Amino acid sequence: MDEIAEQSAGAGRRARGGGGAARRAERTAPKIEFARFIERRIPNLEILNEEALEIIEHNAETVLEEIGVNFVENPAALDLWRAAGADVQGERVRIPRGLARKLCATAPREFVQHARNPERNVTIGGKNLVLAPVYGPPFVRDLEGGRRYATIEDFRNFVKLGHMSKYVHHSGGTVCEPTDVAVNKRHLDMLHAHMMLTDKPYMGSVTEPSRAADSVEMSKILFGSDFVDQNTVMTSLVNINSPLTFDSVMMGALEVYARANQACIISPFIVGGAMAPVTVAGTLTQVLAEVLAGVAYSQLIRPGAPVIFGAFVTSIDMNSGAPTFGTPEAAHITLGAGQLARRLGLPFRSAGSFCGSKLPDAQAAYETANTLNIGLLAGVNFMLHACGWLEGGLVSSYEKYVMDADQLGALQRLSQGIDMSANGQGMDALREVGPGGHFLGCGHTQENFKSAFWKTDLLDYKPFETWEEEGARDTSTLASARVKKMLGEFQAPAIDPGVAEALAEYVAKKKAAVPDAFM
Amino acid sequence: MDEIAEQSAGAGRRARGGGGAARRAERTAPKIEFARFIERRIPNLEILNEEALEIIEHNAETVLEEIGVNFVENPAALDLWRAAGADVQGERVRIPRGLARKLCATAPREFVQHARNPERNVTIGGKNLVLAPVYGPPFVRDLEGGRRYATIEDFRNFVKLGHMSKYVHHSGGTVCEPTDVAVNKRHLDMLHAHMMLTDKPYMGSVTEPSRAADSVEMSKILFGSDFVDQNTVMTSLVNINSPLTFDSVMMGALEVYARANQACIISPFIVGGAMAPVTVAGTLTQVLAEVLAGVAYSQLIRPGAPVIFGAFVTSIDMNSGAPTFGTPEAAHITLGAGQLARRLGLPFRSAGSFCGSKLPDAQAAYETANTLNIGLLAGVNFMLHACGWLEGGLVSSYEKYVMDADQLGALQRLSQGIDMSANGQGMDALREVGPGGHFLGCGHTQENFKSAFWKTDLLDYKPFETWEEEGARDTSTLASARVKKMLGEFQAPAIDPGVAEALAEYVAKKKAAVPDAFM
Repeated sequence: MDEIAEQSAGAGRRARGGGGAARRAERTAPKIEFARFIERRIPNLEILNEEALEIIEHNAETVLEEIGVNFVENPAALDLWRAAGADVQGERVRIPRGLARKLCATAPREFVQHARNPERNVTIGGKNLVLAPVYGPPFVRDLEGGRRYATIEDFRNFVKLGHMSKYVHHSGGTVCEPTDVAVNKRHLDMLHAHMMLTDKPYMGSVTEPSRAADSVEMSKILFGSDFVDQNTVMTSLVNINSPLTFDSVMMGALEVYARANQACIISPFIVGGAMAPVTVAGTLTQVLAEVLAGVAYSQLIRPGAPVIFGAFVTSIDMNSGAPTFGTPEAAHITLGAGQLARRLGLPFRSAGSFCGSKLPDAQAAYETANTLNIGLLAGVNFMLHACGWLEGGLVSSYEKYVMDADQLGALQRLSQGIDMSANGQGMDALREVGPGGHFLGCGHTQENFKSAFWKTDLLDYKPFETWEEEGARDTSTLASARVKKMLGEFQAPAIDPGVAEALAEYVAKKKAAVPDAFM
Repeated sequence: MDEIAEQSAGAGRRARGGGGAARRAERTAPKIEFARFIERRIPNLEILNEEALEIIEHNAETVLEEIGVNFVENPAALDLWRAAGADVQGERVRIPRGLARKLCATAPREFVQHARNPERNVTIGGKNLVLAPVYGPPFVRDLEGGRRYATIEDFRNFVKLGHMSKYVHHSGGTVCEPTDVAVNKRHLDMLHAHMMLTDKPYMGSVTEPSRAADSVEMSKILFGSDFVDQNTVMTSLVNINSPLTFDSVMMGALEVYARANQACIISPFIVGGAMAPVTVAGTLTQVLAEVLAGVAYSQLIRPGAPVIFGAFVTSIDMNSGAPTFGTPEAAHITLGAGQLARRLGLPFRSAGSFCGSKLPDAQAAYETANTLNIGLLAGVNFMLHACGWLEGGLVSSYEKYVMDADQLGALQRLSQGIDMSANGQGMDALREVGPGGHFLGCGHTQENFKSAFWKTDLLDYKPFETWEEEGARDTSTLASARVKKMLGEFQAPAIDPGVAEALAEYVAKKKAAVPDAFM
């Protein structure tokens, strides 16, 4: 790790994390395992044929041309669209067939998001999959404390869990809403936690353009100003107000980030039947139209700005009006959207540890596993919410975070396909053991058993009697113990004291400059 | 239902279930929903490329030629193999390269298994998927009674749940072991339950050749002797003693069924690292070699006998020695075996509601959902254990049965792909609603909302407050209530009283003929 940090010492202030004090601290810290982002070696599941894809692409262009999209309270955006050749009437932007797709062509097919520890850099796009935790819940839940409003302490705990989780490649953004901090200041504390408590990559604030600007400024302190000008160090979440509406707050954040060459996920927020047609093909049409318009706009701001084709997908429960998760319709949309993203040549964001359940129980796990597996097979490149999501996104669950994070290890292994080397073929073992024999003792097994199988850090495979003697613990009870263990063992990664001081100063100064606001 | 039964009245005693008394009973019974077996409209996931498949096929032939397989205590089998051109030394049968595959060619690519209600017939093979419940556990578990030895009452309850479960297409076989009935007689009670309590297709006994013969005899009473001679009415499970060993009990059952033109699943029973190499490609090689030998043998008994390429797959936990489920290695093997089965032109059996958990908790659901999804995408044609499996197959769980059965509805919906009709494309809805609108009230939504989304019969999407008021129930608590409701509403499907009497007589006579044996 030191070696890599030193190798990149020429890159502006890039090597700050590898300074003398930092190196000393690092050598005494316990080893934290971490896995590089996933590079898939299995095929995607192509659920739509060529004809179906062409129909949806044609229909999306029809939507943009005939119906159009609204850019709300954003005269500058309307000017840009007009200049690009769109038909602008009031806030409605109608985009001639083919124009949006043409504008999208300048967006990169993949990009590197840098972390302050270069080993944690992630490449987003191509056959890669980057896993990031839950984003946005106002509540947290754990086994002992139940469901309650999230605080900044919870926020920091979730960042710590992310740092300690081997298969969580990215620290994410709003892992929960720190509701005890003023709305107009919490982005500062959140960014500070992501910068100080982990050396994985992170997301920026999108709730106001000024907060996006703070995110860029703080990143310049962490990485160095020149480095941020030349590299992508944040991937932030810009939701589209589906159907077909781009509000000025989210677009304002997008504009800040695109100008700074920082990445955004441009993501329709779809509850099928409410914000999109009740049918899958109709929803896919709307998703594609919205992404085409949003990505095209990002490229009007700055050609080449890195962006991700997002699709947050759920369906409505027609009885209760609640969103549902892990459903076949969500799977269809995720798979289809992945194909559309690849044809557009953009990285794809979708799926996650989605569930509607109030508890980290069987419902939660069915729904999550359905979604994670489909996400992998849909070719997702950036999976936000990959662990910790509960209750339709209202709750960040401590136990479910570590339960899901354990499953992410299985997902990563699944993505690697089948080893067809001579060792993988195992003919020696078959010859040695023969009919009626046993493989446990054979040489091939002895040589391979340590790495042959994915190993859970959580699930229980003990004999019934042992399990009963140990208290007949269910998964969430086991997870609760694991949460405590991980938080107990956490040590923050080393950081240059000067950088730490500068970050603390920035946060303090910004907080002091304005009164608290809670909306 | 009556109409179809009457249409087939010419087919021997086929129409017995549709007789006058039966019809009267049926008209008063509450409507039970049932879904036809799955005909997939989505692609399979092809994880191995052509080169890898050829390597495994070549290696499997090498195993058969150089290492061979054992047919234990079965001189007639050795004679058949010798006559077919194999090299037989003692009980070891070495099969020249290409011979087994050539012999397999007479097995049908797909076949119909008839049910006494023709609407419940299933076609096994091709793009179809037939879902059958858990098979084999000596224990049952429910929320109130905990874990205990299974009884014939439990057995009948699980058959009833299968009859009531819309997406369970097949009544299965040993849904649990009725341990309160003598080992040498329990097959009679089990078959009797499958014949009387449901009109779905079922499996025969394999624990002794004589019990397989009883299964054929009882089926002749149910369907008519001529009908059974000319049609397949049972699919039974013949496990291979992996590695590479075919014991005389299982082969004896296979011989009975093949001669009677009844179907068998010929299924390696693999715990990777113990009964097969620790690597995936090595395991696939062994699976293919074993199935080639077993299916070839079935065709030596009777060319054209219906068989299924089976693969029961688990890996060993190298710490505890326990089997593990829902793992990436199991997924790799299931996907690869599906490709090998399709290249061999045989129906494929694998996957199920596998889990190692002792409780129907999150672990159970992750493991099950991982396996069910992969099973669908692996092109499985017959999925035994599709619901109700718990604790590594030691336990049939009442609650997990209905939890899994609910998920099977999601799986069936997922398998149907995306509707690309004009209605599916939903352009009218997009035009009607436009930017910033809401789809709930639009005409397209009103016309489609009843069928647009898969609907759970179990999972909870209520608002948090409502859920809390109702007792904050987790999934297994909800499932427990559903079990009680289903068993309370159960009504046996009508059957011709003469047939019922003849079946009861057969069972009574057979039971009286020999003393009880408990091993």
